[in-house]
Amino acid sequence: MRAVALGGGHGLHATLSALRRITSDVTAVVTVADDGGSSGRLRRELGLLPPGDLRQALSALAAAEDGGSLWSEVFQHRFGGDGALAGHAVGNLLLAGLFEVLGDPVAALDEAANLVGVSGRVLPMSVEPLEIEAEVTGLENGGVSRIRGQVAVASTPGQVRRITLHNPERPDRPPAAAPQAVRAVLDADAVFLGPGSWFTSVLPHLLLPDLHDALVRTRATKVVVLNLIPQPGETAGFSPERHLDVLFEHAPRLRVDAVIADRDSVPTPARLRHAAAGLGGRAHLADIADQGVAGRHDPDALASCVREALGLAREQ
Amino acid sequence: MRAVALGGGHGLHATLSALRRITSDVTAVVTVADDGGSSGRLRRELGLLPPGDLRQALSALAAAEDGGSLWSEVFQHRFGGDGALAGHAVGNLLLAGLFEVLGDPVAALDEAANLVGVSGRVLPMSVEPLEIEAEVTGLENGGVSRIRGQVAVASTPGQVRRITLHNPERPDRPPAAAPQAVRAVLDADAVFLGPGSWFTSVLPHLLLPDLHDALVRTRATKVVVLNLIPQPGETAGFSPERHLDVLFEHAPRLRVDAVIADRDSVPTPARLRHAAAGLGGRAHLADIADQGVAGRHDPDALASCVREALGLAREQ
Repeated sequence: MRAVALGGGHGLHATLSALRRITSDVTAVVTVADDGGSSGRLRRELGLLPPGDLRQALSALAAAEDGGSLWSEVFQHRFGGDGALAGHAVGNLLLAGLFEVLGDPVAALDEAANLVGVSGRVLPMSVEPLEIEAEVTGLENGGVSRIRGQVAVASTPGQVRRITLHNPERPDRPPAAAPQAVRAVLDADAVFLGPGSWFTSVLPHLLLPDLHDALVRTRATKVVVLNLIPQPGETAGFSPERHLDVLFEHAPRLRVDAVIADRDSVPTPARLRHAAAGLGGRAHLADIADQGVAGRHDPDALASCVREALGLAREQ
Repeated sequence: MRAVALGGGHGLHATLSALRRITSDVTAVVTVADDGGSSGRLRRELGLLPPGDLRQALSALAAAEDGGSLWSEVFQHRFGGDGALAGHAVGNLLLAGLFEVLGDPVAALDEAANLVGVSGRVLPMSVEPLEIEAEVTGLENGGVSRIRGQVAVASTPGQVRRITLHNPERPDRPPAAAPQAVRAVLDADAVFLGPGSWFTSVLPHLLLPDLHDALVRTRATKVVVLNLIPQPGETAGFSPERHLDVLFEHAPRLRVDAVIADRDSVPTPARLRHAAAGLGGRAHLADIADQGVAGRHDPDALASCVREALGLAREQ
């Protein structure tokens, strides 16, 4: 089975960890709008794609054995102290070096994937560093504010209504998706959206016209995985159904086949079933929360629920 | 043939480039007293071995093909601009990450060697970051000054008389050589000292008691390769013979079998022959300067001269 997971950050890590239990053919398509932390510093200093979410996806798909594990550990290692390197993940620096030497982020990620022992593939959703802009209400001016940048949007105390995406260097045209990401979605058997920061990690993929079209046109089974609990900040107070509404508002032509949610995170299952049906799909509720770490999916449980949603036998 | 080359910086690069033309079993034993540039910044910020000379040695021994070349290129790539990363070589950052993750510089260098496709081995002369201290005359006070640090010693306008080496963290005892470096010298068929910055790259090896003893005891053929032209700074005005005198002053028990020098860099061949004989060896003069780049050895010509000095047939 060819699986493609779209997202970023911890949410994408959860999907990838579950999918690698089902198939060895997993492609991650990763947001490139991060402007915080080590990624943000590298982006500003070197003008490169923010590497952090790409590194996390490589780590999620990296081999646990066969020598890949050392490089995966080195990739994830962060320098300490309070100097110029403090907080930088070694993998971010190595990806930045590969980007500069090869001049092609997709080729660079394929080399990095090979180094850490990824059997699938990690792709950027676009080879352009992008910026998120959000329309936000509920801030002190009482009207609609515009907020720029992933960190600012993810942490706004206001309500995010809508986001847009652009390349600050090329405001004259819509940002282009990476052709390899478009191809992966078209060729997939199953495509996964979410979980993750809804406005800043999940929805951005729908705002690249080429990728949006591919998601609409692909014959892959389309699966939305909802968050366990409302995220503080950008989706504070959002019900599971509201997450689907927002998805529809940003991509009205998109139909989905399955909506996966954690049973304890859905106050009114009937409403979620109704909302899923509105998008053309079925809701699948299961116990998929990690019992030890709040807000994190259990990869085995999520994998089971994905198998059930796709109508797969135990092993595939 | 098992060859071991001791040194640092560009000089060591020259020997390694020549030796890899003669044998695939080359071990570099590298100074770890650098405190300048990217290495110095990493050393001060993270308290690690300065990685620059180690990275250069890896690069000199790296495979030119078979996929090793990309990683070798990435290793040597330096970030530009004027930000926190400007001037750092990617390989230095990766070595720093490996040092921290593995906690063992020798194991880290073996992993890095594997990545860039080194067929031999690169070892630090010590796993302790060391500091060079020099006795210098001819500075304005008229007496003997003490100067600390590789950069300061290498660029002093005074005359360096003698150097000592210590671990600033452990001033109570002499610094320890890496046992693997000691073993390599004892097991070698041929050991090479120089060319390079004489006081700051070549002599430091002789000041580690264990490594000094191994150099005295080994049954390997011992070869000294002299610099092409006097280095500005630490050895300004030094004749070829003076280089050998300084070697003897720092290691009176050391005997050498061959002294290789460039014909045009030796004003009085008879004097050099006499000085070489004083150390127990023979002088080998040949045209080994790169005709294009001043101060650089031609690796093919140096390899030929090494073969002649060792009495080797054309291929080994």
